[in-house]
Amino acid sequence: MSDEDDTESDGNGGTEHGHHDPDREAFSHDPVGHAEARAGMTVGELADEYGHAGVGAADLHEAVGVAEAMFDDDVTVFFSLAGAMVPAGMRQLVVDLIRDGYIDVLVTTGANLTHDAIEAIGGKHHHGEVHAEGKTEREHDETLRDEGVDRIYNVYLPQEYFATFESHLREEVFPVLEAESETDGSVSIQRLTEELGRANAAVNERDDVDEDPGIAAAASESDVPIYCPAVQDSVLGLQAWMYSQTSPFSLDALADMTPLTDIAFDAEEAGAFVVGGGVPKNFTLQTMLVTPGAYDYAVQLTMDPKQTGGLSGATLDEARSWGKLEKDAENVSVYGDATITLPLVVAAARERVENAD
Amino acid sequence: MSDEDDTESDGNGGTEHGHHDPDREAFSHDPVGHAEARAGMTVGELADEYGHAGVGAADLHEAVGVAEAMFDDDVTVFFSLAGAMVPAGMRQLVVDLIRDGYIDVLVTTGANLTHDAIEAIGGKHHHGEVHAEGKTEREHDETLRDEGVDRIYNVYLPQEYFATFESHLREEVFPVLEAESETDGSVSIQRLTEELGRANAAVNERDDVDEDPGIAAAASESDVPIYCPAVQDSVLGLQAWMYSQTSPFSLDALADMTPLTDIAFDAEEAGAFVVGGGVPKNFTLQTMLVTPGAYDYAVQLTMDPKQTGGLSGATLDEARSWGKLEKDAENVSVYGDATITLPLVVAAARERVENAD
Amino acid sequence: MSDEDDTESDGNGGTEHGHHDPDREAFSHDPVGHAEARAGMTVGELADEYGHAGVGAADLHEAVGVAEAMFDDDVTVFFSLAGAMVPAGMRQLVVDLIRDGYIDVLVTTGANLTHDAIEAIGGKHHHGEVHAEGKTEREHDETLRDEGVDRIYNVYLPQEYFATFESHLREEVFPVLEAESETDGSVSIQRLTEELGRANAAVNERDDVDEDPGIAAAASESDVPIYCPAVQDSVLGLQAWMYSQTSPFSLDALADMTPLTDIAFDAEEAGAFVVGGGVPKNFTLQTMLVTPGAYDYAVQLTMDPKQTGGLSGATLDEARSWGKLEKDAENVSVYGDATITLPLVVAAARERVENAD
Amino acid sequence: MSDEDDTESDGNGGTEHGHHDPDREAFSHDPVGHAEARAGMTVGELADEYGHAGVGAADLHEAVGVAEAMFDDDVTVFFSLAGAMVPAGMRQLVVDLIRDGYIDVLVTTGANLTHDAIEAIGGKHHHGEVHAEGKTEREHDETLRDEGVDRIYNVYLPQEYFATFESHLREEVFPVLEAESETDGSVSIQRLTEELGRANAAVNERDDVDEDPGIAAAASESDVPIYCPAVQDSVLGLQAWMYSQTSPFSLDALADMTPLTDIAFDAEEAGAFVVGGGVPKNFTLQTMLVTPGAYDYAVQLTMDPKQTGGLSGATLDEARSWGKLEKDAENVSVYGDATITLPLVVAAARERVENAD
Repeated sequence: MSDEDDTESDGNGGTEHGHHDPDREAFSHDPVGHAEARAGMTVGELADEYGHAGVGAADLHEAVGVAEAMFDDDVTVFFSLAGAMVPAGMRQLVVDLIRDGYIDVLVTTGANLTHDAIEAIGGKHHHGEVHAEGKTEREHDETLRDEGVDRIYNVYLPQEYFATFESHLREEVFPVLEAESETDGSVSIQRLTEELGRANAAVNERDDVDEDPGIAAAASESDVPIYCPAVQDSVLGLQAWMYSQTSPFSLDALADMTPLTDIAFDAEEAGAFVVGGGVPKNFTLQTMLVTPGAYDYAVQLTMDPKQTGGLSGATLDEARSWGKLEKDAENVSVYGDATITLPLVVAAARERVENAD
Repeated sequence: MSDEDDTESDGNGGTEHGHHDPDREAFSHDPVGHAEARAGMTVGELADEYGHAGVGAADLHEAVGVAEAMFDDDVTVFFSLAGAMVPAGMRQLVVDLIRDGYIDVLVTTGANLTHDAIEAIGGKHHHGEVHAEGKTEREHDETLRDEGVDRIYNVYLPQEYFATFESHLREEVFPVLEAESETDGSVSIQRLTEELGRANAAVNERDDVDEDPGIAAAASESDVPIYCPAVQDSVLGLQAWMYSQTSPFSLDALADMTPLTDIAFDAEEAGAFVVGGGVPKNFTLQTMLVTPGAYDYAVQLTMDPKQTGGLSGATLDEARSWGKLEKDAENVSVYGDATITLPLVVAAARERVENAD
Repeated sequence: MSDEDDTESDGNGGTEHGHHDPDREAFSHDPVGHAEARAGMTVGELADEYGHAGVGAADLHEAVGVAEAMFDDDVTVFFSLAGAMVPAGMRQLVVDLIRDGYIDVLVTTGANLTHDAIEAIGGKHHHGEVHAEGKTEREHDETLRDEGVDRIYNVYLPQEYFATFESHLREEVFPVLEAESETDGSVSIQRLTEELGRANAAVNERDDVDEDPGIAAAASESDVPIYCPAVQDSVLGLQAWMYSQTSPFSLDALADMTPLTDIAFDAEEAGAFVVGGGVPKNFTLQTMLVTPGAYDYAVQLTMDPKQTGGLSGATLDEARSWGKLEKDAENVSVYGDATITLPLVVAAARERVENAD
Repeated sequence: MSDEDDTESDGNGGTEHGHHDPDREAFSHDPVGHAEARAGMTVGELADEYGHAGVGAADLHEAVGVAEAMFDDDVTVFFSLAGAMVPAGMRQLVVDLIRDGYIDVLVTTGANLTHDAIEAIGGKHHHGEVHAEGKTEREHDETLRDEGVDRIYNVYLPQEYFATFESHLREEVFPVLEAESETDGSVSIQRLTEELGRANAAVNERDDVDEDPGIAAAASESDVPIYCPAVQDSVLGLQAWMYSQTSPFSLDALADMTPLTDIAFDAEEAGAFVVGGGVPKNFTLQTMLVTPGAYDYAVQLTMDPKQTGGLSGATLDEARSWGKLEKDAENVSVYGDATITLPLVVAAARERVENAD
């Protein structure tokens, strides 16, 4: 981040900005300049306009600045992807970030890996409805149940794809891990995600699937490790458990923490790009509890309110008390729907970084 | 809105979409295609990417489509601007919409008109902080109180500008209205906003102020009426009251409803573009209670949750039960910070409309 | 509030607590003691249990303490009731607070006064559904439209009651005001609410209605003025406007500000009890902008998040920068559904106050 | 749940109610009767008053009814406790539910187990502040960092207690498990929580700690299994990992799924009592994906909004499409701060159940 940007982000003063000029009086701050919204402007230009405004727009502008700084080559980026961002349509964006070298570590959920794999091997999610015509939400879900369709908010997944996914795991993924498990007693969860990515890529190519091989495949190819602490809390985990019932396969809950901690130790500078809350957020942040350093940069795109005291909406400042963020880290939280804010921040930060190249 | 867009918005199925194809099975809907976020893309292209995704992104994409339809020449647009969107940086965007003919009626708050006028005559808002360095929120506000600075979330306004605003009203605005008030018994609130706009423009030019003359000025020049039902709930209203203490000036609370209703009666098609909730939202929607027609299009950018039962977060479907929306109206609500979503929707809709020209 | 309570509320440290003991180290604060939930406990005992816990529970406990202090005879209480709290079921609770002398000024919406009057004269609201069986929200509202039923979240109002309400206004309320209007040029909005309350009580008794005469009636009988700044934004306001079309009746938008300000001037101590946001909240708070004093106590039960920057969720600390609250005021905000928190806080505060008597 | 309650909960019509009477017209539903808030009323009486009101109050009333039904002896209750509800003050309430036989399975986070253990062995959490006097949130957290105090929203934990906790684990808990781990290759996470509970109870008694031995101890004594799928995402998990670095100790990520599924299989009727979201919520619900049955009762007290599409705020109806809830299950969600709603629902349901005995 250049000095100029630095000053700018100070002026826009989000709730968690990083710098301070003691000479400035409270009321001599930068005047509010008003955002424009012109036909044909780029997303980067829109982000600059947000910088003139207040409230969430100012935070979003600041987030673009911190993301830009984080996307520098010298910063090791831990990317946390919660919930069900893959069925919500954020799969390609994350794939591109991995392939283009912007992400060094991915922490995510079994749900995202399950849905990512289903698309890699030819399954599809569909735009659906919270309430279908002629139904209440309850009746609608009763009908979907009868029709064998699972609903994730306004996205549908036909259950038949879970059967395809099961075959994929049992034929392409688990047998390799079973062998390693027999030798070593168990395998790590990261090994499962890595092998899943390799198999997703292989089947995607073999079957000439009209869809990107996806996040796990891209991570596997790019040597970006994926950590998934609560893997048993997903269809992927359920399948692993069922397979383990009749084979010597088992997963070690603790094994990933050594290599993850090593990456944190070795990072020159570290950045946390946190999308949504939950276990991925906390696991990403807590990594710094057992290292001498802490995050130098942190961006959080959260959908949950902070006043509940819940983890998902908790400010990044709170993480500072625990030593998860450096005391002088640049950090900003944007409160809003991450399916809207994530593409916006990424497109704008990439525009800045790639135009500067 | 073209047929193509129409089908598309059906497929993306927000919670309040307008159309339905009974032949389609629930699980044969459009597949989720995943949003991309590329360096250099335009805001309109980003909005198209949102259309591939789910949840709020799909709603935002649909809102762009409804806004595009509403910005057609044949649609009379009632634009509702709540709260303090002017000090939050949305002033120029609204000015441009008025000047470029996209808005036919503006319903807003006294707060927005107060802050709009202050900038027109040379005052400034400043990027501030929710908590200054070295202060709690409470202490910070105690200090601002001592320093004569009013805070609106993370925006500051030096109180000296309220004195300038008072002089402006007493010298340039109220005397004209006092004369009319004497003749007619009272004046309408719309007359106050019109005269305020005229005076803002005049002083802005006379003093060569380095800032746009603003929303009231643009509306006054473009013959766009501004309605402000709760004007007494603002500094503008307090000043009007204080002036009325020593002069025969008075404001009629009911007078504006006749011309507003006439506009609704005369509209070929009507659209409601609702930014935030509160009185402006309800007043805009209730106009249709006393006309035979109702809104054909409605976009709502709201920051408040719907599950509270509060008006500000209430869905537009609820307004349909009251007859405020046509039964087959196209309507969509986007839940999120309007300082982020308003520039996004407006830039994308203008890109579509102006590129099509 | 006793010294003991004072210390306690310090310890529970909500985000907007009033007192501070500089000798205490940050980490020597009161230990968290854990809430119990026992069969048969009173609401006051439950509130005490909340005082042991953290997050929102601690704020709620603190709110009970501030409400208790505010319900003291020496405090002039300005009660702000937003939105549609009457159809949501909060009518009787407010009636009881007025009759029992806990409220000195009521600031509310036309919606609340409309629904209050409808029940006074024999109309009913009904428990309804956001989505009826066999319908989407949209279809449901289309059906309600056809059936002549208006929906307010999960409450229904048959439209026939609006016709009854219209007759009530035209026969019992407006003629009296029309006469005064002819004499004085116009009447104040407070006069309209007072006359409405008188007529509600009279018809309620005459027709032997099996429902309390309600808020306006209780206020009228108890000489508690009701202010309703945006009265035109309601069915009550629409009816007033329609009546004014054919009679010399008119409402003065500014007239109420003089008596309201006088009450604020005369208050020994002042308290703001704010339920929901919107115009009632702001109008209640801004009253102190034109008086030398400010609120000594403030409780806010808000349903909207604060991070939007919107007024309805804004903290009470922000109001301090404007001089609406005394610098050393006791104030607390509880974020949550007011239909849950309002009965809880009122029952607990009344238990404390009435048991102490 | 009695027939009478049944009818009543139908009338109150929350968004996810269970029953339907097709003969009733939409507008002939129960009239809204208004909540009273009287001095000295019990929490159960307050819950009855909520039943007269609308919006969230009606949902809360309905939740008490479903909880009452779930607390019946024939229902196997899966209790999900997310986030950091223990440091937020909900520890004793859960302990009492376990001891009194209302909970059969507990699914929770490592954070809750860590904080529960710290109090069992003599540590304390303290009421703290989001912002201390004289500090911003950021500065405040920098100071807490220097002082060795960790902050969880408005609760503090001195870091010294983590050292005590580490000794406790290394001396009292891990050695037993290490021996089992050597024999069996690894141990399950449930074994860790069970052994932790046993050790917490033993040290609590040995050291005569002035605090309840807590949740894990009560569960261990009552043979209530605790499942903690993301245990590595906590200080408890970090300590387990560090211990595993120098000993043959390891945790099996999949082992718990067999006994958990067996309990679901054996349940005559099953109920899910979900407090907060995250992994505990999803893991509790997904258990039914691999059993022929599904939940017959479900109550959700969530702090997160549903319109984000995130898991934590997702409705329970959505879970129905997946077959996690029976099609005719009674289910209700209450949106609000769980530190407020949990004690309220539990006290009212216990009042009903225990008074009926």
